[in-house]
Amino acid sequence: MKTAIIGIGLIGGSFALSLREHNICNQILGVDNSEANRAKALELGLVDRIVSLEEAIAEADLLVLAIPVDAIPILAVKILNKIRPDQTVIDVGSIKSELCEMISQHPNRNRFVATHPMWGTEYSGPEAAQHGAFTGRSVVICDRECSAPDALQTVEEIYRTFGMPIIYMSSEEQDLHTAYVSHISHITSFALALTVLEKEREEEHIFDLAGGGFESTVRLAKSSPETWLPIFIQNKYNILDVLREHIHQLQIFRIMLEKDDREGLKKAMRKANTINRIIK
Amino acid sequence: MKTAIIGIGLIGGSFALSLREHNICNQILGVDNSEANRAKALELGLVDRIVSLEEAIAEADLLVLAIPVDAIPILAVKILNKIRPDQTVIDVGSIKSELCEMISQHPNRNRFVATHPMWGTEYSGPEAAQHGAFTGRSVVICDRECSAPDALQTVEEIYRTFGMPIIYMSSEEQDLHTAYVSHISHITSFALALTVLEKEREEEHIFDLAGGGFESTVRLAKSSPETWLPIFIQNKYNILDVLREHIHQLQIFRIMLEKDDREGLKKAMRKANTINRIIK
Repeated sequence: MKTAIIGIGLIGGSFALSLREHNICNQILGVDNSEANRAKALELGLVDRIVSLEEAIAEADLLVLAIPVDAIPILAVKILNKIRPDQTVIDVGSIKSELCEMISQHPNRNRFVATHPMWGTEYSGPEAAQHGAFTGRSVVICDRECSAPDALQTVEEIYRTFGMPIIYMSSEEQDLHTAYVSHISHITSFALALTVLEKEREEEHIFDLAGGGFESTVRLAKSSPETWLPIFIQNKYNILDVLREHIHQLQIFRIMLEKDDREGLKKAMRKANTINRIIK
Repeated sequence: MKTAIIGIGLIGGSFALSLREHNICNQILGVDNSEANRAKALELGLVDRIVSLEEAIAEADLLVLAIPVDAIPILAVKILNKIRPDQTVIDVGSIKSELCEMISQHPNRNRFVATHPMWGTEYSGPEAAQHGAFTGRSVVICDRECSAPDALQTVEEIYRTFGMPIIYMSSEEQDLHTAYVSHISHITSFALALTVLEKEREEEHIFDLAGGGFESTVRLAKSSPETWLPIFIQNKYNILDVLREHIHQLQIFRIMLEKDDREGLKKAMRKANTINRIIK
């Protein structure tokens, strides 16, 4: 199988590495509009050849869209316009509703499989790509009934070979759930970084102390605005829902602390502890 | 040197392991008011013998208070009441102002060194103790001018042997800074866990998706209320300051998102990215 990775950054690059590790492709083509990324992807051996988008569409059996989510819908349509019935296109973006709406009436819609592998780091670019990145993580496949059985099967086999449990959802469900388990974590990290940076203006040595707890809650604040702004904008209504609830929870915490409400605080913390049912 | 660990949990147990690893002590005594902890600490080899507090005071060259912060000031006074001039007492708690105020006029104050090794995990109890826990982390020593030079030197040598850079601060400074780099992270994690658990009542499958970002921002929500409630209460005013600022930052984020203010969001994220100056 010949695969074209369109956008050879953190996710696209890691996808390429996983394809190689599992011997899924005999050739990996790379498309990227940044010259620096193209050179780096070749240097790191993420892809075998750099090609144009047109060449990728002409040659590849599988095309993987790994670009910021605001660029995915338009490019998806352009690719579907030119695709043959033996080719498959997937995206690996974090949100799906707009994309799936945009392509819903396209005559080649069934060659597209909308996927969201649940992995990422706070870093970006081809040099951030990691070996074995996806293994053990879940992948969401959205609106599977809109994809042709053979296209779906090709993609499912790849993700199973990567070692990823597959979860099926509608694109609307996936965008709601992702707001809760991924997008909000990024917003709280950005806000926490800003909170501490604000204080640092008064207090010089504040960061001498930054310990493990701080690092793990704030590391996502290093994430790229180029990736995350489009996600926040496209998933705005779901994110606003969860953000309002999160601010509400923090207000309750603040009020309990102001009132020295030990019982209330203890009860809230015990309830929060039950999160260990979910994350080990 | 003979050391007594008072409170053989996550921190006390890890302290004992580090003492052993670096051959600092020929004997480690353990004091704990939980029978389960005492048995576990012996079974895991964290301590050589279980003794009473009185025996610990009679025998040990160094006494390490590793109990919840609401219990430290009273026990510190009781120990200082009975201590000889060749003994040293330290605490390893997360806040200092109340403790240092309580012991400030004690005739044996100079045998006490107030320390905060900047390490922890979301787990508790002797079975949570880790080898090499403190290496590479900072330790804060508060109000060093209140400690006798020989007591200070003993403690500094131990922490240097553990591989910990030492930072000196007043107890008030340490409590302020710790609110920003440790305590707030715990509150946001608790609140984030509650936010998601609240939503889970409506949406069954929300946690199938929980990816790496979620885990790292929410893992502190597994932390013990027994450890953290006393910290929040004792450091209430500093924590309220930072909590108000954090809620304010989240409100700004929310408003920018409501208004589709892309420039504002991008600017805020870029500013937050500068946190990479501090955490690598």
